[in-house]
Amino acid sequence: MSVSMGTSGTRSARERLVVIGGDAAGMSAASQARRLKGPDELEIVAFERGHFTSYSACGIPYWVGGDVGDRDLLIARTPKEHRARDIDLRLRTEVTELDLDRGRVRARDVDSGAESWTSYDKLVIATGARPIRPELPGMDAPGVHGVQTLDDGQALLDTLARTRGRRAVVVGAGYIGVEMAEAMINRGYEVTVVNRGEEPMSTLDPDMGRLVHEAMEGMGITMVNGAEVTKLSTGDDGRVRAVATEDAEFPADVVVLGIGVRPETALARAAGLPLGEHGGLLTDRSMRVRGHENVWAGGDCVEVLDLVSGQQRHIPLGTHANKHGQIIGANVGGGYATFPGVVGTAVSKVCDLEIARTGLREKDARRVGLRFEAVTIESTSRAGYYPSASPMTVKMLAELRTGRLLGLQIVGREGAGKRVDIAAVALTAGMTVDQMTVLDLGYAPPFSPVWDPVLVAARKAATRIRGAG
Amino acid sequence: MSVSMGTSGTRSARERLVVIGGDAAGMSAASQARRLKGPDELEIVAFERGHFTSYSACGIPYWVGGDVGDRDLLIARTPKEHRARDIDLRLRTEVTELDLDRGRVRARDVDSGAESWTSYDKLVIATGARPIRPELPGMDAPGVHGVQTLDDGQALLDTLARTRGRRAVVVGAGYIGVEMAEAMINRGYEVTVVNRGEEPMSTLDPDMGRLVHEAMEGMGITMVNGAEVTKLSTGDDGRVRAVATEDAEFPADVVVLGIGVRPETALARAAGLPLGEHGGLLTDRSMRVRGHENVWAGGDCVEVLDLVSGQQRHIPLGTHANKHGQIIGANVGGGYATFPGVVGTAVSKVCDLEIARTGLREKDARRVGLRFEAVTIESTSRAGYYPSASPMTVKMLAELRTGRLLGLQIVGREGAGKRVDIAAVALTAGMTVDQMTVLDLGYAPPFSPVWDPVLVAARKAATRIRGAG
Repeated sequence: MSVSMGTSGTRSARERLVVIGGDAAGMSAASQARRLKGPDELEIVAFERGHFTSYSACGIPYWVGGDVGDRDLLIARTPKEHRARDIDLRLRTEVTELDLDRGRVRARDVDSGAESWTSYDKLVIATGARPIRPELPGMDAPGVHGVQTLDDGQALLDTLARTRGRRAVVVGAGYIGVEMAEAMINRGYEVTVVNRGEEPMSTLDPDMGRLVHEAMEGMGITMVNGAEVTKLSTGDDGRVRAVATEDAEFPADVVVLGIGVRPETALARAAGLPLGEHGGLLTDRSMRVRGHENVWAGGDCVEVLDLVSGQQRHIPLGTHANKHGQIIGANVGGGYATFPGVVGTAVSKVCDLEIARTGLREKDARRVGLRFEAVTIESTSRAGYYPSASPMTVKMLAELRTGRLLGLQIVGREGAGKRVDIAAVALTAGMTVDQMTVLDLGYAPPFSPVWDPVLVAARKAATRIRGAG
Repeated sequence: MSVSMGTSGTRSARERLVVIGGDAAGMSAASQARRLKGPDELEIVAFERGHFTSYSACGIPYWVGGDVGDRDLLIARTPKEHRARDIDLRLRTEVTELDLDRGRVRARDVDSGAESWTSYDKLVIATGARPIRPELPGMDAPGVHGVQTLDDGQALLDTLARTRGRRAVVVGAGYIGVEMAEAMINRGYEVTVVNRGEEPMSTLDPDMGRLVHEAMEGMGITMVNGAEVTKLSTGDDGRVRAVATEDAEFPADVVVLGIGVRPETALARAAGLPLGEHGGLLTDRSMRVRGHENVWAGGDCVEVLDLVSGQQRHIPLGTHANKHGQIIGANVGGGYATFPGVVGTAVSKVCDLEIARTGLREKDARRVGLRFEAVTIESTSRAGYYPSASPMTVKMLAELRTGRLLGLQIVGREGAGKRVDIAAVALTAGMTVDQMTVLDLGYAPPFSPVWDPVLVAARKAATRIRGAG
């Protein structure tokens, strides 16, 4: 192991920002800092362990499914573009240690193994998340694929090109799982989804997850719920052949793992930085790591404040990572910006089924001691008489007594999902469902019934809250 | 003229509610009141001058255009259904006088001409709006059609069925005008829109209206802006033949008037009820007519408070009328509900072009003494790499110093229009554009870029406001 003082030998008035992780949060931070401070004031060094920067991991299912024709379309900004902005980007370079006392990081060239220390004045940790991989027999067999990185996506596509069989098993039925089920359907596979939970989409209440379950079965997807994978069987050639649960075995020519991720905070943990109960870094409002003046963190490696429950959560999502990066960059660059927290909004689709949620589920509300009414209504995306008006189900939770909106869940077809934004803003503003009943939402027959489905839910919830006095 | 005491002869402990006008506001009020009070407590008499009740006037362009196959689909609740709920509905009966001192209304049977007085304990005025008809030569010629009522729509369809020529001129380029332009395109007509304003959609700023103008021309619609109609020329058969402006004449086999409406408040004016500067009835928060304990009014005949400007406006829109009716019905029925006001949200489309607005335009803000920054951004409805991502333009106004959101305008394609709801809720909550930059909106590639277009606009506006210090 060769350890040198590297670029940290001399120090000038110019400050050095070191960024660990070259995707959304890290490179947004670097770019925003560069916008505010030129290279004569701020040197920026960014370490990325992979080949790519600033790409949309959320887009991988659509690339695998064939909706997006080319990997490079998922790359928002290339290494070359970052370097053109005077960001010293070091690809295939993994940071292996943080030395907070001396203000330096040790990095290793993945290909050569050479290591060196780089000192920093300011540090941004954007190490992202790592996929959850249960330690099961066959987990590493050829034909078993995760879909977290562009390299993962390419490996899966290579497998699909080589595979003659047409049976795919997707493990997990969260966002990645259902999106990958769609992708495999689009590729012409027979798809089985093996899901540990009672219903798919455990970010919804089970009654709403049930609607997703039924719709997915209607698409020809085999849903296996309440099933824990026990092993992945392999054939004589060593390739995956089936996914086994306690009760059954599901033949598989390819297996896609969509089990979720955990914050990638091994470095931070080793350095003694504060981590929350979900394993993510804890930051203040400016995205500065708590108790560390010159260290910021953002993206999938941090926990965020849930504004509705008042608790910390881990929500790996590109839109938060981008915001974090922007805010960190502003603060590092001498500006001022804060991230107040999230309300837990998410939207997804499986083929033409749209699924959205924001705020608290029933069990979230109970967990934090909130009492509530929950109502569910059926409505349509457009005026009922307008062509292509499609049904949607909206569930709304409101706090007893105060009538404060606590959460919204939507399952429907075209035009359903983004209606969740109405509730996301209302939650942020702390509105009551009674106030929501008179919201002035856009109405015309091609866009909405005269009472928008969200208003119908709010009316029912408000009536229920009054009745519960 | 026969005037009798009609049903007002005897009075019991049972109260009588009289409703004038059988469309959205009136019949929603009647229905909601009935839900709260049975026929033994409350008698409900509703007068409607036409043949229909509770229909969607907003749906008429889609019926005329052929998207909606049958008139009856536009009727939310028929006279028979209302009567089945113990509402004494009198069709083809026009109220001709309000006698507030004695608490009675005079009504005339349109067919027989017979008149009678009906006393009330509580009165709801929901007389709607009447179309603006400039007094010009040829305005009443066959082939010239308004589209306010179902009868109007049927008459236009009858004309289209009889007309061989294929040239349609639409007068006016507001919501009704552009929607009728789409309808006539769908019917296979060559369409010319003659518009008095600088650009179509005067509810937008002209720079955004310009985008609508260009898109409509791209659809093959001939746009004539800044043109005042001077007369409608007729042929030897007396039918309309052309629409003339000061500068030109546009051949027309059929003319559709989409010039807008004014509150229908002649009765109220004659009775001395308070009217605002737009000619609409003035109510309090409970939708009670100001200064009149037992008289309520709602729908297209009232003015509403604009929560952003603090001024009264007249906004004829089915979604407001339904809310008013609901609120009036609750209050008349012994409950409690209020209408705080509007933020001026509207959404519309011309073929695949979506147009939306909420809050103040530049000239609205200036008129009420607000200083502001206006920003315009281009983005897409979905992640840029996702198929069918379509471009949209978003304009945002924010108040100087405070950074408070003042208004939003959107012109785009599929998925653009209903994004206005984000701003509608933010306006209602009094959010600043800085607060909006961190809104937790639904993100996934098929639904939005990682920064939703509304967030992109908010970021630009927030930066501009800070710069303007």
